[in-house]
Amino acid sequence: MFTNLEHLGLAVHDLEAATALYTTLLGQPPYKKEHVASEAVDTVFFQVGGAKIELLAGTSPDSAITKYLGKKPEGIHHVAFEVADIRAEMQRLRQEGFVLLNEEPKRGADNKLVCFVHPKSAAGVLVELCQSISPTNHE
Amino acid sequence: MFTNLEHLGLAVHDLEAATALYTTLLGQPPYKKEHVASEAVDTVFFQVGGAKIELLAGTSPDSAITKYLGKKPEGIHHVAFEVADIRAEMQRLRQEGFVLLNEEPKRGADNKLVCFVHPKSAAGVLVELCQSISPTNHE
Repeated sequence: MFTNLEHLGLAVHDLEAATALYTTLLGQPPYKKEHVASEAVDTVFFQVGGAKIELLAGTSPDSAITKYLGKKPEGIHHVAFEVADIRAEMQRLRQEGFVLLNEEPKRGADNKLVCFVHPKSAAGVLVELCQSISPTNHE
Repeated sequence: MFTNLEHLGLAVHDLEAATALYTTLLGQPPYKKEHVASEAVDTVFFQVGGAKIELLAGTSPDSAITKYLGKKPEGIHHVAFEVADIRAEMQRLRQEGFVLLNEEPKRGADNKLVCFVHPKSAAGVLVELCQSISPTNHE
């Protein structure tokens, strides 16, 4: 079971411009900027109530975000749901016939283990499962 | 200021199939179905932590959702943020140069007053502002 809509990821071309725009739109500044080397993205996070808005810009031509923006306009890239046990949820979804984009959880931004579900499995939505990495859960 | 990510709206062709899919994906059934005559849509709501997932299917060719799905694939249609005072937020955003799609708040699903911000104003994202209609706020 998914316990929260953890964040919404937006793919943007110009991270600085989008950060300024969303600071004005949301009425508050971001609380964190983070480079995720494994995904070749720079990220900026805003907290809005119980969920986050994550702006994502690619930092190399190989970045999934750069490739995405080569085919599609700026906009919502993925929606991430918090789960208590990512391996158990991955197993549950596999058994239900959902196509997962990674076989094992991988490290994402914001100190999380993440797994993506193929948009074709979820009515066109790229769904991310994420589980916070606790101090006793060093994978 | 936006106080919560209230819901994520997904445009779907087949509401019954999408409801079954999201019941399995999210690991829980929807808590509400609602027809919104003013928008010519049928909606289904799931609660995931502090936010909702709203599935939307058009019920007439004139529905914004039907028109949307005539041009684009199924997927995330809009993101809605809760605000405490929708008129004050609309005034603030207008002054900041954002383009609003309705001049006055209108009634949306789930007992809300709503206003949409043009996606060109928000890096490709159709943003909805929403304010719950309280018993003393009959507009």
